[in-house]
Amino acid sequence: MDYFKESLEIHRKWKGKIETRVKVPLNNQKELGLAYTPGVASSCLAIKEDPSKSYELTGRGNRVAVVTDGSAVLGLGNIGPYAGLPVMEGKCALFKEFGNVDAAPVCLATQDSVEIVRAVKAIAPGFGGINLEDISAPRCFEIERRLQRELDIPVFHDDQHGTAIVALAALLNALKVVGKGKENARLVINGPGAAGSAIARFAMEIGIRHILVCGLHGILSPDDASLDANQRELALLTNKDSVKGKLSDALLGADAFIGVSGPHCVTPSMISSMGDKPIVFPLANPIPEISFDEAVEAGAYVVGTGSSEHPNQVNNLLAFPGLFRGVLDARALSVTTEMQKAACFAIASYSEPSRWNVLPSPLDKKVHLAVAKAVYEAASK
Amino acid sequence: MDYFKESLEIHRKWKGKIETRVKVPLNNQKELGLAYTPGVASSCLAIKEDPSKSYELTGRGNRVAVVTDGSAVLGLGNIGPYAGLPVMEGKCALFKEFGNVDAAPVCLATQDSVEIVRAVKAIAPGFGGINLEDISAPRCFEIERRLQRELDIPVFHDDQHGTAIVALAALLNALKVVGKGKENARLVINGPGAAGSAIARFAMEIGIRHILVCGLHGILSPDDASLDANQRELALLTNKDSVKGKLSDALLGADAFIGVSGPHCVTPSMISSMGDKPIVFPLANPIPEISFDEAVEAGAYVVGTGSSEHPNQVNNLLAFPGLFRGVLDARALSVTTEMQKAACFAIASYSEPSRWNVLPSPLDKKVHLAVAKAVYEAASK
Repeated sequence: MDYFKESLEIHRKWKGKIETRVKVPLNNQKELGLAYTPGVASSCLAIKEDPSKSYELTGRGNRVAVVTDGSAVLGLGNIGPYAGLPVMEGKCALFKEFGNVDAAPVCLATQDSVEIVRAVKAIAPGFGGINLEDISAPRCFEIERRLQRELDIPVFHDDQHGTAIVALAALLNALKVVGKGKENARLVINGPGAAGSAIARFAMEIGIRHILVCGLHGILSPDDASLDANQRELALLTNKDSVKGKLSDALLGADAFIGVSGPHCVTPSMISSMGDKPIVFPLANPIPEISFDEAVEAGAYVVGTGSSEHPNQVNNLLAFPGLFRGVLDARALSVTTEMQKAACFAIASYSEPSRWNVLPSPLDKKVHLAVAKAVYEAASK
Repeated sequence: MDYFKESLEIHRKWKGKIETRVKVPLNNQKELGLAYTPGVASSCLAIKEDPSKSYELTGRGNRVAVVTDGSAVLGLGNIGPYAGLPVMEGKCALFKEFGNVDAAPVCLATQDSVEIVRAVKAIAPGFGGINLEDISAPRCFEIERRLQRELDIPVFHDDQHGTAIVALAALLNALKVVGKGKENARLVINGPGAAGSAIARFAMEIGIRHILVCGLHGILSPDDASLDANQRELALLTNKDSVKGKLSDALLGADAFIGVSGPHCVTPSMISSMGDKPIVFPLANPIPEISFDEAVEAGAYVVGTGSSEHPNQVNNLLAFPGLFRGVLDARALSVTTEMQKAACFAIASYSEPSRWNVLPSPLDKKVHLAVAKAVYEAASK
């Protein structure tokens, strides 16, 4: 792809996609003395008296750490913290451009869960929120859970919840387009990793009742002894009847498919076997579960992918900038399910969906304002 | 002081003195795809192949972490990481304004040396350098030493070496003003903490041969069993003859005094007892060892303080932006003594010194360019 060559060239020219900007005048002794010593001591002492004043007197309340260990970067896998940096800087640029959030890339030199938790807790005082990024499953679950428990600022793993929010907004709108209700729709999710687990859980919160999650060996079933803790929990949540079978069995007559797994694991005949006007979201990146063209040809009615080259891109960018904007503005202590629902519904209801436009464009800056407002209101309750 | 009230008010208005600025266009799908996925993958893979490419393809090579544990902030003492944040944000603003360095505040939730080293090592992959700030002695010595040994990027404790560089530039120029040579000058340093220790060591590197360092109980002497490890090392370096006595004894006939201790420990009669045209730098902040007016009245010829309200402010701001600029541009692995000397000499030789102007103004942006150039050249050797 030419994208790659051009991107490499301009990365070399840019030398980083973000920089620090000074917000205050520093042109003379007086201005120096107000922004720095001696004047700054008054803000220090005010915060010493009352640490919550750090939200009023510093940039902390608008600052988010984008934290990775480089273990699951894009579709590239475990490429480490240095190679993950271009993605984190890009994410920070998107945070600022679309949410006016001051994000800082934090690439960790460790992939040990305990060490990651320790490092993030150590740097937390300078930040108003933590966005975990591209940390592989199942470590990401424990890391997020521990940080949420032990920090008093919002901690959000975007690959899980950001993906779930946008995928579900797309699914809700797609169901509207095909005229089906969410209560009776049958959803199949392939890939029980970070994104798939979050999508399954969030789908249940949203009111979708019939879900099957598939892994490498087919439908996750509670009595399968080979499952890890997270997969077993998912199986218990979604598959109480212990339905068994392969992905192809799960898809038989299903209304919707969301793939967050790997390349080429869905065939045209599996799509053909789905129910009326099937909704198909093969989101794996860079190579999807089934190509856009094949899916359409096989009868998929609404198709969404992870790529901007086709209609209906399911893009996290629709959620995280506005979500954090709302969370930070409300000074919320965590990102609750209610806030995530508010973000999802704000995206879904932003514009009237149609077959090739189930989602608004993330380039429309007003979407992010709508998400921020909805999240802020949910947080203020 | 009115400074304090006005500063507090504008800190409330500013809500942080720095923000993130996006350097790249993000106006359409193509630009998104170049800065972020899918295009960004090409930079990730290039860095995975060769981690040193992170200097070419990301902002890492221009990014410095300003790290504190809040244990020795300004003259305010151990006020903790939250209360230290306004100072760190101010420092980051100065880094950008005067050195075009993208600095990020990192306020640590721990004051344990081992934990601090661990945290800084964990976040190091995103940075091209580490500026340690306002960490109390003696922990700062071990923390800096360990990080310098264990990281492959420059680690610099500004309270030690930045202060030493500027204080020595001022002293060299003051000696020039009073017509004395550095080889025979007798220097007394009061306060064997982070700054005092670094000043003593750096003064020896610069070629000053007669130094006495005083602590709370007078002149540090190698046979004093009450000294800690750092103080004993200092005593061994400076006081081979085991001279004993109080600060007043040390000052008798001395040519220069540098105070980095606390308020009101030097009397006018001590100044009067010094040699001809004495050089007196009472640098303690906010309250100096002896007031500017008292020092002048008692016969001090060149007086330098830590405050901008008097002539000859000895301000770290003269060194750190240009020093890091040069170090980063040279991609130096550490800040060597040679680079620090180069910075010191660049400051001292920038302009012709006079009694009330021994140093250039840090507001003159060309000073920082001169420092950067000198450091770059020293690093390139």
